[in-house]
Amino acid sequence: MTARARTTETDAVVIGAGPVGLFQVFQLGLQEIRAELVDALPHPGGQCAELYASKPIYDIPGLPLCTGQELTDRLLQQIAPFQTPMHLSQQIESLEREPDGRWRLTSSTGMTWRAPVVIIAAGVGAFVPRKLALPELAVFETGETPQVRYHHVDPSALANQQVVVMGGEDAALETALSLARNGRCARVTLLHRVDRFKADAPLLQALEQTVQAGQIRLVVGQPVGLQTDGTRLTALQLATPDTSDGETVAWPVDVLLPRLGLSPKLGPVAEWGLAMERKQIVVDTERFATSEPGIFAVGDVNTYPGKRKLILCGFHEATLAAFAAAAVVHPQRRQLLQYTTTSPRLHELLGVAPGL
Amino acid sequence: MTARARTTETDAVVIGAGPVGLFQVFQLGLQEIRAELVDALPHPGGQCAELYASKPIYDIPGLPLCTGQELTDRLLQQIAPFQTPMHLSQQIESLEREPDGRWRLTSSTGMTWRAPVVIIAAGVGAFVPRKLALPELAVFETGETPQVRYHHVDPSALANQQVVVMGGEDAALETALSLARNGRCARVTLLHRVDRFKADAPLLQALEQTVQAGQIRLVVGQPVGLQTDGTRLTALQLATPDTSDGETVAWPVDVLLPRLGLSPKLGPVAEWGLAMERKQIVVDTERFATSEPGIFAVGDVNTYPGKRKLILCGFHEATLAAFAAAAVVHPQRRQLLQYTTTSPRLHELLGVAPGL
Repeated sequence: MTARARTTETDAVVIGAGPVGLFQVFQLGLQEIRAELVDALPHPGGQCAELYASKPIYDIPGLPLCTGQELTDRLLQQIAPFQTPMHLSQQIESLEREPDGRWRLTSSTGMTWRAPVVIIAAGVGAFVPRKLALPELAVFETGETPQVRYHHVDPSALANQQVVVMGGEDAALETALSLARNGRCARVTLLHRVDRFKADAPLLQALEQTVQAGQIRLVVGQPVGLQTDGTRLTALQLATPDTSDGETVAWPVDVLLPRLGLSPKLGPVAEWGLAMERKQIVVDTERFATSEPGIFAVGDVNTYPGKRKLILCGFHEATLAAFAAAAVVHPQRRQLLQYTTTSPRLHELLGVAPGL
Repeated sequence: MTARARTTETDAVVIGAGPVGLFQVFQLGLQEIRAELVDALPHPGGQCAELYASKPIYDIPGLPLCTGQELTDRLLQQIAPFQTPMHLSQQIESLEREPDGRWRLTSSTGMTWRAPVVIIAAGVGAFVPRKLALPELAVFETGETPQVRYHHVDPSALANQQVVVMGGEDAALETALSLARNGRCARVTLLHRVDRFKADAPLLQALEQTVQAGQIRLVVGQPVGLQTDGTRLTALQLATPDTSDGETVAWPVDVLLPRLGLSPKLGPVAEWGLAMERKQIVVDTERFATSEPGIFAVGDVNTYPGKRKLILCGFHEATLAAFAAAAVVHPQRRQLLQYTTTSPRLHELLGVAPGL
């Protein structure tokens, strides 16, 4: 072992673990293509898990009603037979053609892969939560029990904690309300710089009721500093409408959940020399191939005549891209359309008993 | 009312109630397009209900495992909000352009529709069960309790009946086995002209066990005539390997289930002047439009570069066809991509409460 991380050789790297990236892995698996999955978020599911985890989706065929998290869980169950390595909390930063024609990918954590096929399922880009303007807080984002958490946290991890949710829009209100309903935090505070919220009427109404019931503390103010016990964050120093210049109020905090919005960033993808149109990658509708051989793009990141940014369309795109990828990875193999209902080989790959 | 059936004016007629035709209705509903559904089979679901009702499907995105019947039921639940009229057991026999540009459709039962949009989701064609070569039996196919039934019958409808299943392949064996397991028939006979069956090994093995257990009577023979009590069919007259020329054995029967195979017939669709390629309708990948304005084709019946005959691809095709149909039906309306998660208008159409 050298100091430099070893390069993983594989058949395909899928960039993006949203619903379309997950189903891409399933279709690659059926084509006997080994794949690895990379995503910027700390969990799979993309927008579905980050923005719509508990919101209903009605237009997935055969699922009259499911939430974003449920769809994610179902897809994870569906791809389980393929045991695809999943590399989270990292972005692909560079993509370069090797002399042998394969692609070399390097992520923000220094991991590298070599593969003949790359499938970009990056949606509207990597979701980057808008950060607080207090650089001193960054140190509390890491470690075993981070105190500043920008992504979805399971309420059970916040039991008996003094939680401060920050923000003034849907995501902040939803987070605070769901913690209040859960009822296991020592205290739930919703902190916003002004006394106005920008959210749906039912959310605003629910907030008002919950505040009146004493289950959420509403605080208007701006964090301008922090207090620690030397190791852990203990309180935020707030400038409020009632404090004079320079004066602050200390507000105790065990866990801070900034919910200031997510700004999706297409990021490095835009710099890989792929033909693009209005920030979308141009593909054909036969293989969903980009302008670079071996690179495909599926889901919201691509564009073609008739394109609609719908999850179910991405499922179709991922399927045809998998057939095209098979022609790259297994060029000698005769391409056959096999059905999961009847093909013994697909049953073997899926680890299911032959159907009766 | 005249003797001639009234013509139904609607926005769109969908030909074929298989999974893609059903989802087509859903997408048309979201576009506020009134649709009517027509199918040759006596039930919705197409191949899924007729050939794979109890067989597993593994590649519907988000449904790691479901049977053909389960997929059908889920789609029926999904389209329920749109209360789409469904016209079964009839084929569209003619399709003609009216002077005002609308299409006039006439079915085999004499129903007629006029609509600006027609969507063909006919799969490999109308499933026509191969019929027995005894024309005298035809009279027992109709009425309130038909005694000769070519399509799937719920076992509960056969309780205490002497049932004869005919055929030598998977469908016949599966039908006989499922009735034997259900255990409510007075007797289950499997009648085949020779002593050899063409079916999967597990099915053959199950048949052997069930015959040995006395739950299925195996009879080798050919029906050459029938007996009635004047009104009802009471027995088949069989020529068997043991009977001499002209001699027959009478085999009592209350219900006869011929399972001699289905031959899908594209039928009249092939004669409507649409551009075709190898018996498939040629479409573009932007609107899934055929060569005739206002007529679209989705699912297994169409072809385009990259086409794969997969249900999930049909779902995508049906979705883009619905957007294209909206441009025909609502030409003045601005086309917007709305999401079922967030659009109040789509919530209203689906009859669901606004999401929280």
